[in-house]
Amino acid sequence: MSGSGDVHYHDYLQLDKILNAQFPESDKLNASAHDEMLFIIIHQAYELWFKQLHHEADSLVAIMRQPSLNDNSPELQTVVHRLNRMVVILRVLVHQIDILETMTPMDFLDFRDMLRPASGFQSWQFKLLEAKLGLKFEYRHGKEYYTAQLRQEHVDLIKQAETNQSFLQLVNDWLERMPFFDDAEAWKELSPSKTNDIHPFWVAYTNSYSNSLAEAEKNNLEAFHEVMFEHKETHYTLSAKANRAALFIMLYRGYPLLQLPFQLLNNLLEIDEQLSTWRHRHMNMVHRMIGTRIGTGGSSGKDYLKSAADKHYIFKEIAQLTSFLIERRRLPQLPKAIEQKLGFAAPSNSPEGGRTHSTRPA
Amino acid sequence: MSGSGDVHYHDYLQLDKILNAQFPESDKLNASAHDEMLFIIIHQAYELWFKQLHHEADSLVAIMRQPSLNDNSPELQTVVHRLNRMVVILRVLVHQIDILETMTPMDFLDFRDMLRPASGFQSWQFKLLEAKLGLKFEYRHGKEYYTAQLRQEHVDLIKQAETNQSFLQLVNDWLERMPFFDDAEAWKELSPSKTNDIHPFWVAYTNSYSNSLAEAEKNNLEAFHEVMFEHKETHYTLSAKANRAALFIMLYRGYPLLQLPFQLLNNLLEIDEQLSTWRHRHMNMVHRMIGTRIGTGGSSGKDYLKSAADKHYIFKEIAQLTSFLIERRRLPQLPKAIEQKLGFAAPSNSPEGGRTHSTRPA
Amino acid sequence: MSGSGDVHYHDYLQLDKILNAQFPESDKLNASAHDEMLFIIIHQAYELWFKQLHHEADSLVAIMRQPSLNDNSPELQTVVHRLNRMVVILRVLVHQIDILETMTPMDFLDFRDMLRPASGFQSWQFKLLEAKLGLKFEYRHGKEYYTAQLRQEHVDLIKQAETNQSFLQLVNDWLERMPFFDDAEAWKELSPSKTNDIHPFWVAYTNSYSNSLAEAEKNNLEAFHEVMFEHKETHYTLSAKANRAALFIMLYRGYPLLQLPFQLLNNLLEIDEQLSTWRHRHMNMVHRMIGTRIGTGGSSGKDYLKSAADKHYIFKEIAQLTSFLIERRRLPQLPKAIEQKLGFAAPSNSPEGGRTHSTRPA
Amino acid sequence: MSGSGDVHYHDYLQLDKILNAQFPESDKLNASAHDEMLFIIIHQAYELWFKQLHHEADSLVAIMRQPSLNDNSPELQTVVHRLNRMVVILRVLVHQIDILETMTPMDFLDFRDMLRPASGFQSWQFKLLEAKLGLKFEYRHGKEYYTAQLRQEHVDLIKQAETNQSFLQLVNDWLERMPFFDDAEAWKELSPSKTNDIHPFWVAYTNSYSNSLAEAEKNNLEAFHEVMFEHKETHYTLSAKANRAALFIMLYRGYPLLQLPFQLLNNLLEIDEQLSTWRHRHMNMVHRMIGTRIGTGGSSGKDYLKSAADKHYIFKEIAQLTSFLIERRRLPQLPKAIEQKLGFAAPSNSPEGGRTHSTRPA
Repeated sequence: MSGSGDVHYHDYLQLDKILNAQFPESDKLNASAHDEMLFIIIHQAYELWFKQLHHEADSLVAIMRQPSLNDNSPELQTVVHRLNRMVVILRVLVHQIDILETMTPMDFLDFRDMLRPASGFQSWQFKLLEAKLGLKFEYRHGKEYYTAQLRQEHVDLIKQAETNQSFLQLVNDWLERMPFFDDAEAWKELSPSKTNDIHPFWVAYTNSYSNSLAEAEKNNLEAFHEVMFEHKETHYTLSAKANRAALFIMLYRGYPLLQLPFQLLNNLLEIDEQLSTWRHRHMNMVHRMIGTRIGTGGSSGKDYLKSAADKHYIFKEIAQLTSFLIERRRLPQLPKAIEQKLGFAAPSNSPEGGRTHSTRPA
Repeated sequence: MSGSGDVHYHDYLQLDKILNAQFPESDKLNASAHDEMLFIIIHQAYELWFKQLHHEADSLVAIMRQPSLNDNSPELQTVVHRLNRMVVILRVLVHQIDILETMTPMDFLDFRDMLRPASGFQSWQFKLLEAKLGLKFEYRHGKEYYTAQLRQEHVDLIKQAETNQSFLQLVNDWLERMPFFDDAEAWKELSPSKTNDIHPFWVAYTNSYSNSLAEAEKNNLEAFHEVMFEHKETHYTLSAKANRAALFIMLYRGYPLLQLPFQLLNNLLEIDEQLSTWRHRHMNMVHRMIGTRIGTGGSSGKDYLKSAADKHYIFKEIAQLTSFLIERRRLPQLPKAIEQKLGFAAPSNSPEGGRTHSTRPA
Repeated sequence: MSGSGDVHYHDYLQLDKILNAQFPESDKLNASAHDEMLFIIIHQAYELWFKQLHHEADSLVAIMRQPSLNDNSPELQTVVHRLNRMVVILRVLVHQIDILETMTPMDFLDFRDMLRPASGFQSWQFKLLEAKLGLKFEYRHGKEYYTAQLRQEHVDLIKQAETNQSFLQLVNDWLERMPFFDDAEAWKELSPSKTNDIHPFWVAYTNSYSNSLAEAEKNNLEAFHEVMFEHKETHYTLSAKANRAALFIMLYRGYPLLQLPFQLLNNLLEIDEQLSTWRHRHMNMVHRMIGTRIGTGGSSGKDYLKSAADKHYIFKEIAQLTSFLIERRRLPQLPKAIEQKLGFAAPSNSPEGGRTHSTRPA
Repeated sequence: MSGSGDVHYHDYLQLDKILNAQFPESDKLNASAHDEMLFIIIHQAYELWFKQLHHEADSLVAIMRQPSLNDNSPELQTVVHRLNRMVVILRVLVHQIDILETMTPMDFLDFRDMLRPASGFQSWQFKLLEAKLGLKFEYRHGKEYYTAQLRQEHVDLIKQAETNQSFLQLVNDWLERMPFFDDAEAWKELSPSKTNDIHPFWVAYTNSYSNSLAEAEKNNLEAFHEVMFEHKETHYTLSAKANRAALFIMLYRGYPLLQLPFQLLNNLLEIDEQLSTWRHRHMNMVHRMIGTRIGTGGSSGKDYLKSAADKHYIFKEIAQLTSFLIERRRLPQLPKAIEQKLGFAAPSNSPEGGRTHSTRPA
C-alpha cells in the first residue's frame, strides 16, 4: 500500500516536461521579446488550474448523479467542500491577472503579431468547464464564434458536454428529490385550503410574501407566481418544483438538515460571482492591453468580452430567488412534526435561521 | 518640535468617538439583528478610507496646479507615489466586499426595512471623489438621481467640485506643457515635410501607424486623426495636444525623463480599473443580497449600479490611446539632440523602451 | 416594526463623528506631515474592525455557554458561520498592511517623534480579543509589558476577560459533552479488552496508531499517551477527554453529525493562522519602518513582536492533534449502532471521510 | 517579421505536454486519492512561476553586470519594472497557499506515504533562485540538508550560482559606482573638516545622526560607525561604501536622479518580505497538515521551516540601514552644485523628499 520508496520530486511532478514546454515565437524569429515568456507561463498556469477545476467538477457530477443523494447523504459534505475549493481556486485566478498587467501594451506589441491567429478565446478547457457546469449554448455569446477557433476534437468535447446532464441540471434533480413536503398530514395544520392543489406551505408563504410587498412592488407578485408555480416561459433550467425547494432551503437554513444544502446553493452563487469577476477583470485587462483597435475578425475583443461578462451567469435562476425572500418574523411557523424531521430533537429549540419566536408579533 | 510627551494611543485615535458611533436601528426597535453591527462598521470603514482618498486627491490637485510642474519636476515623484497609494487603498476596498458577503440575504432582511430610506447611494464622499478626479456630470448615470438622496450641503460640495478644475483637467494642462516638441530645428531631420503645419514627428509617426494597420483595420486611421489632430467632436476633456504628449510618453517611456510621466499615466488607468472592479463587485453583491426586486424608487438598484459600472471610467480618453501604439521597431528614431534632452548623456545607449536599434530592419 | 422612515445614511453612520476624529499632531505643531493622516486613519480602521471582532466573539461566547449546546444543536451553525466571518475579516486586516507599507521610513520620521509615547502596543481591544479567545496570561510574551502602556480601565477589562471562561475553555467543555462514547454496549464489539478502563474505541485506535508509526517515529507514541490519556503535565487548557473528542471529530468528519463540529475546529485553526500571519507581516512592516534601532523602553519593538508572533497561538493544543491522525484505511470500523447515531440512516452508505470500505485490506 | 500565421493556442502553449503531466501515485496503486491531483497541480504551478522568476532574475543579472550602468542609465527602469513584477508574482504565490489549505490532513494522509521520499524540500528551482539573488551558503539553514535531497546536476547548478556574482553583489557594485560624492570641491562647503579622510557629507551627517539619538539610544552610534565606515566584522556582502550610497539614496530620494535607485532598493526589501511571508505561511500550512510528528529524517519539517523563515533574509543588510535614517529637517543641506547634478534645473525648487526648507528651524 505504501509507495515504491523511490519517488523523486522532480520526476513525480514531471518537471522535465513542465519546465521545457516554453517556446517563444519571438525566439524563433530572432527577435527575442522578454515578456513573451510571461505570456506563455501565465497561460500555462491558467490551463493547469482549469484542469484542476475539471477534476473537481467531474467528481461533483459523479456524486450528484447518484439517485439516492438527498439532504442527509454523507457525500453532500464532499460536494460542498469541493465547490468551496473551486471558489478558492477561482479567487487565485482572478488575482493572477495582476501579473499579466505588469506587461505594458508596448511590451506586448513586441510579439503580439507573431502569435496570430492564436488567442485566449481558444481555451477549450474553459469553455468545456462552462458547459459542464451548465452554461447553455443558447446563452453563450457569439454562439458560432468559438467553433471557428477551436479544433474539432475540442468542439466535440464541448458539444458532448452540452448534451450530457450538466451540474446545474443535477442540482435541479437533487432539489426536486428533497423530501420536505411529502408528509401531507403533517403540513395540513398550516393551511386548511383545499380549493386548489397548491401545497399548504406555499399557500401560507404566498400570503406572507404578498403582505411583505409595498404598494410599488406589487408586480413582484406576478414574477413570484411565474417562477414558483406557473413556469409559462420556456427558457428555464430549474423547474418550479426545484425553485420551491431551493427557496425553502434559503428560508429555513437554520434547521440542521438544511445547513449543507444551503452551503451548497451559496457556493454556486459564489462560483458565478468569481467567474463574473474574472471575466470583468479580464475584459479590463484586454482593454488596457490592446485598446479598442478593431481586430481582423471584424468585432473588437473588448465588445465580445463585455457581452460575455454580462450574460454568462450560470446559476442566475438560483440567484434570482433572493427576490422572493421575506423577513424571518413573517415566515410560516413549521409544524412540529416537520421540525423534527428537519433535525430538531427538542422541538422547543428556536434556531437562528429558523423562525425566531421571541420577535414574533403577538 | 517633538511631541508633548503625553500622547496616548486611545486619545490620539479618538477612540471614544470612533468606538461609540454605532447605533443599530434594530436595537432601538428592540428587535436586535446581530448583523446590523457589521453593516454599520463596514460602511464606516469605507467612509474612513474615502476620507483618506480625499486627503491624497486634494494633495495631488494642489501639486498639479503649480504651473511650473513639468516632466522633471521633483514633485512628480510625489504625485506618482500618492496615486499608487490610492490604488493600494482601492484594492483593499475591493477585498473588503468579501466581509459584507458573509451576511446572507435573510440576515440582511432582519433589519433592512428599518434603514429606509438610507442607502449606499448616499455616500457623498464617494461622489465627491469621482467629481474631483474628473467624472463629468454629463457622464454620470442617472444624473439627477443623487441630488434627491444627498443633503444640500453635500450636493453643493459636489457641484463645486464639478466646477473646479478636476485632476483630469490638471493632467491635461500638464501634458500640454510637456516641452518635447519645442525645438523645431532639432526635429527637422525627421521629416522634411513643409506642406502642412503638422509637427515633423507626427508626420513620421502617422506614416508608421498607417503602415502598421492591416487592411481590415484601416478605419482605425480615421479615429487616429480625429483623436490626435482634428477633434471635431466636442465631448473631450483632453485636448488633441495633450493626447499627443500622452501617446509620446507611452511610446518612448524608456527615456529617463519620461519614466515618471509614464508611471503617472499608468496609475490613472490602474485607478479606473480598481474603481471599475469595485463597482462590479458591489453590483454583484447587491444583486445577491436583494435580488432583482423592484425598489420603491421605480428602478432596481442593480440596473443603476450596472449602468454606472459601464459608464464611469474617468480616464477613458487616456486608455483609448493604447489603440494607437505601434511596435518598437516601427518607431521613428528620435534625433540625437532630442534624445539628449530626454536624459541620455551617452547618445549611443539604446534603452529598453526607446527604439531598439539591434532589431531595426536594415 | 419598520423604521421610522427618516433614517439618513450620513446620520445613521454617525459620519459627523467618524469623519471629524482625525487630529494630526504634526498639524498642532505647524509641521504638517502629509502621511500622518494615513497613520491615524489606518489605525482607526483597525480599531473599527476589532470592535466588530468583539461583537462576533461575544456572541460566540454567549452561544457556547448554553449547557445544552451539543453536536446537533442548531446554534452550532451560527458559531461556524461567525467564526468564518472572523477569518474573512482577519484576511482583510492582513491585506490592509499593504496600505501602511506605502508610507516610507522617511515619511514616518516626519511625525514619529511627535507621537511618543503612543504606540501600537496600546491597542487594548486587540489584547482583550486575545484574552477572550483564550490566550492565557502566562503565555503572553513580555507579561507585564502591556500593563505599563494601557489605561487602568482597559487593563481591568483584560484581567477580567482572563478570569472569565474563555472561548477556548467553552470549546473544551463542549467537546467534553460530546455524547459519542456513552453507549458502552454498542462499542463493546470493537474491543473485548477489560484489563483497563480505557474505552474500547481508544484501545483499538491506539493499536492502529502504533502500527502506523515507522521505527524512527516510535517516541510519538509517548506523546500520544500523554496528550490523550495521562496529562501529567499541567499547562493544558484542553482536557484529555476533550482532546479525544476533537481527534474523533477529525477522524470521522464524514458522518453527518460531525460535519459542523469539524468545520468549527477547522475555523479555530484558521483564526490562529490569520492572527499569526498578521503578527508576522506586522513585525516585518515595523522592521522596515524603524529598523533595529533600540527604543527608549530598552527592548526593540521587533524583538517583542517576533517573540509574540512565535508564542501567541491560541488554539495550538487543537493544532497538535494533527500529529495523531492515521490513514482512513487504518481507522477502526465503527459499530453499526454508532454509525446510525452519527447520522447514517442507511448503514450501508460509506461516507467520504468515514471509513472507506473498498480500500479496506481483506 | 510577423508570425507564420498558423500559431494555434493549444500548440503554442504545449498543452499536450502540460495537461498530460499528472500521474498520481495513488492511481498506480489502485487506491485513488482524489486530492493527489491538487497536490501535483499546485506544485507544478509553483514550478512554472519559479521558472518565470528565474527568467526575470537572469535578465536582471545580465543588465546589472554592465559596468556602465549607473544612476541615470535607461536600463535602470527595466530593472525596477522587473523587480516589481517579481513582487507581484510572489504575492500570488503566497495567496496560492489558500488552495492547498483546502486539503485536510486526513485527505493528505490518503496518499502521503506513497510519495516518500519526495518532498517539497526538493525544489531545486527555489533554492537556485535564492542563490542567484544572493543568499549565501553559510546563511542557509541546515547547510548540508538540501544536498541530500537534490540530484547532483541540480546541486551543481546551485553551487555554481553561489560561486557566480549574485544579484546582491551586483547591487553592491552598482552602489559603489554611484558618482554622488566625487566632486570634492563642490562638497567642501558642507564641512571644513580636514582632520580625517571621511567625506565632508558624512562628517555632517554623522553629527546630525548623533544629535538625533536619545540618551538611551547612544549605542546605536557604534553600530552606525561599524556599518558605515569601519566594517570590522567579516560577514558582510555590502561594502561600507555601498552602504553609504544606499543610505544617501534613501535620505535624498526626492531628487530626480535618485528616484529610480530608491525604487530599486525598495523593491529588494519588498521581495524579501514576500519571500518571508511565503515561508511563514508555508510553515503554518505544513504544521496544520502534518502536525509536529517527528519525521524519518530526525528533525521535524516545521522546525526546519521555522529556522529558515527566520534566517533567509537576502537583503537584510539594506533593510538595517533604516536604523540610520534621520528626520528630513535634520538632513544636511546639499550644496547647490550637487543639487543640480541630482537633477534640479532650478535650484530654488524644494522637493518633497529632499530637504524641506520651509520647516527648517531658523
